[in-house]
Amino acid sequence: MDDTRLQTTPLQADELRNMDRFWRACNYLSAGMIYLRANPLLREPLKPEHIKRRLLGHWGSDPGQSFVLVHLNRVIRQRDLNVIFLSGPGHGAPATLAHSYLEGRYSEIYPDRGETEEGMGRLFKLFSFPGGIGSHCTPETPGSIHEGGELGYSLSHGYGAAFDNPDLIVTVMIGDGEAETGPLATSWHSNKFLNPARDGAVLPVLHLNGYKIANPTILARIPREELEALLTGYGYKPWFVEGDEPEKMHQQMAATLDECIDEIRAIQQRARQEGHIQRPRWPMIVLRSPKGWTGPREFGGHKIEGSWRAHQVPVADPASNSKSLKLVEEWLRSYEPEKLFDETGRLVPELRALAPEGPRRISANPHANGGALCKALDLPDFAGYAVDVGKPATSYVSPTDVLGQFLRDVMRRNMTSFRVFGPDETASNKLTAIYEASQKTWLAQIVESDSDGGDLSADGRVMEMLSEHTLEGWLEGYTLTGRHGLFATYEAFVHVIDSMFNQHAKWLEKAKRELRWRQPVPSLNLLITSLVWRQDHNGFTHQDPGFLDVVTNKSPDVVRIYLPPDANCLLSVADHCLRSRDYVNVIVADKQPHLQYLDMKSAITHCTKGIGIWDWASTDLDHEPDVVMASAGDIPTMEALAAVEILKDLFPDLKIRFVNVVDLFRLMPDSDHPHGLSGRDFDSLFTTDKPVIFNFHSYASLVHKLTYRRTNHANIHVHGYAEKGNINTPLELAIINGIDRFSLAIDVIDRVHRLRGVGDHAKERLRDQKIQHLDYAHTEGIDSEAIREWKWGG
Amino acid sequence: MDDTRLQTTPLQADELRNMDRFWRACNYLSAGMIYLRANPLLREPLKPEHIKRRLLGHWGSDPGQSFVLVHLNRVIRQRDLNVIFLSGPGHGAPATLAHSYLEGRYSEIYPDRGETEEGMGRLFKLFSFPGGIGSHCTPETPGSIHEGGELGYSLSHGYGAAFDNPDLIVTVMIGDGEAETGPLATSWHSNKFLNPARDGAVLPVLHLNGYKIANPTILARIPREELEALLTGYGYKPWFVEGDEPEKMHQQMAATLDECIDEIRAIQQRARQEGHIQRPRWPMIVLRSPKGWTGPREFGGHKIEGSWRAHQVPVADPASNSKSLKLVEEWLRSYEPEKLFDETGRLVPELRALAPEGPRRISANPHANGGALCKALDLPDFAGYAVDVGKPATSYVSPTDVLGQFLRDVMRRNMTSFRVFGPDETASNKLTAIYEASQKTWLAQIVESDSDGGDLSADGRVMEMLSEHTLEGWLEGYTLTGRHGLFATYEAFVHVIDSMFNQHAKWLEKAKRELRWRQPVPSLNLLITSLVWRQDHNGFTHQDPGFLDVVTNKSPDVVRIYLPPDANCLLSVADHCLRSRDYVNVIVADKQPHLQYLDMKSAITHCTKGIGIWDWASTDLDHEPDVVMASAGDIPTMEALAAVEILKDLFPDLKIRFVNVVDLFRLMPDSDHPHGLSGRDFDSLFTTDKPVIFNFHSYASLVHKLTYRRTNHANIHVHGYAEKGNINTPLELAIINGIDRFSLAIDVIDRVHRLRGVGDHAKERLRDQKIQHLDYAHTEGIDSEAIREWKWGG
Repeated sequence: MDDTRLQTTPLQADELRNMDRFWRACNYLSAGMIYLRANPLLREPLKPEHIKRRLLGHWGSDPGQSFVLVHLNRVIRQRDLNVIFLSGPGHGAPATLAHSYLEGRYSEIYPDRGETEEGMGRLFKLFSFPGGIGSHCTPETPGSIHEGGELGYSLSHGYGAAFDNPDLIVTVMIGDGEAETGPLATSWHSNKFLNPARDGAVLPVLHLNGYKIANPTILARIPREELEALLTGYGYKPWFVEGDEPEKMHQQMAATLDECIDEIRAIQQRARQEGHIQRPRWPMIVLRSPKGWTGPREFGGHKIEGSWRAHQVPVADPASNSKSLKLVEEWLRSYEPEKLFDETGRLVPELRALAPEGPRRISANPHANGGALCKALDLPDFAGYAVDVGKPATSYVSPTDVLGQFLRDVMRRNMTSFRVFGPDETASNKLTAIYEASQKTWLAQIVESDSDGGDLSADGRVMEMLSEHTLEGWLEGYTLTGRHGLFATYEAFVHVIDSMFNQHAKWLEKAKRELRWRQPVPSLNLLITSLVWRQDHNGFTHQDPGFLDVVTNKSPDVVRIYLPPDANCLLSVADHCLRSRDYVNVIVADKQPHLQYLDMKSAITHCTKGIGIWDWASTDLDHEPDVVMASAGDIPTMEALAAVEILKDLFPDLKIRFVNVVDLFRLMPDSDHPHGLSGRDFDSLFTTDKPVIFNFHSYASLVHKLTYRRTNHANIHVHGYAEKGNINTPLELAIINGIDRFSLAIDVIDRVHRLRGVGDHAKERLRDQKIQHLDYAHTEGIDSEAIREWKWGG
Repeated sequence: MDDTRLQTTPLQADELRNMDRFWRACNYLSAGMIYLRANPLLREPLKPEHIKRRLLGHWGSDPGQSFVLVHLNRVIRQRDLNVIFLSGPGHGAPATLAHSYLEGRYSEIYPDRGETEEGMGRLFKLFSFPGGIGSHCTPETPGSIHEGGELGYSLSHGYGAAFDNPDLIVTVMIGDGEAETGPLATSWHSNKFLNPARDGAVLPVLHLNGYKIANPTILARIPREELEALLTGYGYKPWFVEGDEPEKMHQQMAATLDECIDEIRAIQQRARQEGHIQRPRWPMIVLRSPKGWTGPREFGGHKIEGSWRAHQVPVADPASNSKSLKLVEEWLRSYEPEKLFDETGRLVPELRALAPEGPRRISANPHANGGALCKALDLPDFAGYAVDVGKPATSYVSPTDVLGQFLRDVMRRNMTSFRVFGPDETASNKLTAIYEASQKTWLAQIVESDSDGGDLSADGRVMEMLSEHTLEGWLEGYTLTGRHGLFATYEAFVHVIDSMFNQHAKWLEKAKRELRWRQPVPSLNLLITSLVWRQDHNGFTHQDPGFLDVVTNKSPDVVRIYLPPDANCLLSVADHCLRSRDYVNVIVADKQPHLQYLDMKSAITHCTKGIGIWDWASTDLDHEPDVVMASAGDIPTMEALAAVEILKDLFPDLKIRFVNVVDLFRLMPDSDHPHGLSGRDFDSLFTTDKPVIFNFHSYASLVHKLTYRRTNHANIHVHGYAEKGNINTPLELAIINGIDRFSLAIDVIDRVHRLRGVGDHAKERLRDQKIQHLDYAHTEGIDSEAIREWKWGG
């Protein structure tokens, strides 16, 4: 006997028949969306003119997904469960759209696609149609928090949704194609971070559909015992539902789902009532069903059902080929639409009764419209964490260390709706204070020595796993269900999640700009730290500030970039970001001790403006400047200030204006970005004709990309990371890339007309100084004290 | 009895003692690199001034890695094996550096760090020292093809190295931190793509070191049976080597390595001599040893050995704390350096004899300097695949379809040194012709129906797995060992491997610019296809052309971007890329049928120049142009030509110059990129004062990023992807983003001074046409025939 497969038959004949009919209604709608532009209920014989002119959409995974949805409805009703559903397989929208339409939710949101023959026709026509309904579970899809256009993130999204939602059961359908991706392959381990007492449950359903676009899938082509070992090794208890005969499959699935829910409830009860908090072996389901199940078996001598040929449109040419047309008609009629829908086109009452009511409907569950449940964070006054700054640029503090203290108290006040995420780097990134409020989530084994600084606990709220993909997926799932968080990660390795960022930004843009019914969700806050300029011992692989270029390509409606120059500015920015909605906020701030510039009041003013002149560092008061020295970022700001000091010493009457940029999009024209400065404001800061030496945190070209339309653009000379590095001291790295004080001062001498010639000797000496400092670093392994402890002399 | 752990004791007492001494020599050197700047052999008592001023480096994983290396040497010598070693754990360089130094290879390459006391002292000092030796297995590390600065790619690199190298055994040490990453988690499945008859073997050694930077690792904290199930589920036969007593561990490791090599040879023999080609259960090793093994057990009341505190520098302050100094000295002396090295500082002869000779040394294996083994591809004449183009812009062809035919024959001529990679999309991307030369590699189960178009075979050379990470890792490993390949992938999802691209480009740059001993390796060729402008039914998630921004941030020495406008240009570009060395070549070309512009001769000329005026599309012959219409990319070029036609019709005497760009870096100044145009050449194409309307494939700002220093930059107006999209027809998508013919023509009217006013009526009509075409698309679901079949009228 196979102990991974249940043999009981919990469904009564009537119930089974009606569930099967509901499923057939789903399948009918799915196929109808792909094919029909008229005659939606087949009230007349199918003719070529009823077929869409271009057939687009994906049939393959739909019947399997609908099958799961139908069975979920049964247990939701029977047990009054709170369930959401994430569709992992690519292009699976027809299944979820059909289901939400049959539940009535779709028509509530889109009344033009009502529960009538006409509404159904409109749904069919708009699907995969220009300007219409997408073939993924886009933000437009009721009940969706996971689009799945790019594969790999369904399970991490699911776990993110389950954290701190003790009542929720998150069903995640995982495509066996998707399962081959790296992000999915490691996200199974999320079960080591789910606390059965405090969090909800995740029920993965691995859909062994068998095929991708044109290939079999790996997991469908390894021996059954190997697959079972793999899933057991991931920490799950897999139940198998396998076959292609609907009746048997319905019984199997119903029995299995009952078993899984029983197991979930038993696990939760042990944890919640008996306080027995250990990592349980959570149940999961392997559904092995044919790709394109219930569709045409074969066509043109080729196998369709149960083959990759069922992936997209199984029969390609019904409008032009009468045999194909006949086959499609037979296929559609095999679902008996006339018995599923009444005269008006509405689902018949006995089937409608199978769907849950109101917000229990998967398509209407408020967790999948997380903004609706979202509560603002209870935030302490960030000014209370301020670093004392007397004279600017005279004391060194680690900005993230200070931020950690603020986040600690944010955590304390929001112990069910705020989490911090980081890949094993929370301590390395100096956010250690957070551990005073909460330990690290850990449901894997704990050993005695962990008590010595290990900070591990099943109740922890700091999420650390060495997978940026999983962390980002968790945070996306967490915010899309209305909760708050911050993900801190090494700057160079945030590129690991470039594509996840892209997809999340696209989701936010659609939801924000086009969907009134979607309530605003908390912003996704990315703290980019361990920055390029302080990779003293990590070297070249750890130097890549180019994530900002990826961010600036996304819609101005949803992305923000902040480069707070010091700890107080970081506090102000962080507070702002934690209050915001529907953005991806990127905060760039280092973990090493850096010079502090602004007291709290000045920091708030500066960050609110996002860009501004630092009078105390400028020498052009009441004059037109000879040159503008601008900076964005911590080390670039320090080097720019040091350059100003050198220049003041060399040329006491040189008029220098010092500008610092916190909010990077201030550089853009206001016509292109809501944070952009008007031309007049920009010109009043940067002048229309004076040289601007801009010392920038990232690649220089990004500043040009943002400012190329500015009046004075031709005079903006940007210093930034030039892709040069190794094991380097901070000054050495600055020098190789030309963002150091000496190079900046030389550039000013070269650019200010009246210094040409007179400055030659000074340039010589500056070059000598550069070499002396490099020599020191190469002999001693560190920068000289004069550099390491440089302070603004005024 | 545990059947995953061997109890035999194959080592004789003498052999064991010497192997242990060799291991201790490795450990001594590893610790010495982290701590010492003088007194390298401890010939005098350790004093604060012998300690480096800044202690940088990572001790934790070194002893475990050295342990494996010492044992590999034994089997290499005993069986004359051909072995390379990839170091997966982060910052593990001290182990591999120590090993290569003891094998003599390090000093052969870097004679200033010879096998003398002085040389050893220099090695110690330079390690993790400014401008010195990196703490990862950087390109400077002899025997390395895997830097490991970013975690996750060791195993896919290892498989890439093993393909088509039947004699090679690739040992991949996988850190248990690294094992948490997504890319690593799915790369275990690479064993479904390794053919034991044709390919070499990969021997994974999962190092259960137990800890990351500050946390335990997941795989070290799940029950042993769960771990075993996981690895069995991945398809391996795991052997466990566990403990901390060196003597027992040496015997276990020797027995296990013997067993693994025997199994590998038996598998290969079955496949090669008996033709029994099935996926075998390849052996692997789980090495569970303490982090910081043999280092200080505890310090300051904290456990060090076997804890995350051993990750980096275990004792932080020996220069300032005499207790620490004493501990470090005791630790270093525990290895008895005086018995390991002779008077001159050289390893004693009986230990030196443990290392293999010449190229059998892991540090000198030529496969790890793949350029040395690399042979140029045998390429057919690409011109033989030319598409017949009579009149330009009058016929439609799928460029990748044509490329597929060329690649098919490249494959046929190079059946042991060329592979094509793609995530289940080779067919979708219309490269189907390749299957005529070779099927898809597939060692998982094959079923009967696969014979109908499945194209699966153990002998296949087309690599398809739904993991961009794994494919990219394979190709990197394949090219770094001197072979050739091409990776074709959907444009939007190439962002999945942004960070892998970054790291590979960084590797190439260091190897190419700084290391003469590294021979040039074949370029990594990325074919970006299924482009943004033809995502008719995939929608917004599949629209992201921003990878080019990531590429332009890397060093001009190693990156190239090509946008061939048609099939013949694509052939010319592909031929060029397949011949090149040490680049990442990014080729942007779509799979859909597109207009063809140039016959083969013109295509070669155009691609060789990389940018040029298309006289046949220009109306400014013998005149100064009124406007320059420029394009890069297929659809943008078609729309730009259609705009020219509209304008010719409206304003017959308007002088339009048409410029097309293939080689994107031509736009940069020649001072910034070797492909850049001089100022004079750029100005002669784009004029110094006429409006330039540039229709671009990707985000518009990229063109500005490349051209902002050009004389005429203020007049360059770029149209590109503006992050607007949904399910759209091609024209509809072009219109929403403003790259369509109507918007371009309107822009010309607005920018050319003498058309202002007179063109108002025309603009009105153009706007009407836009709306009419959109209406058609929204009614019919497709673009009108006039648009779909537009041809250049001349």
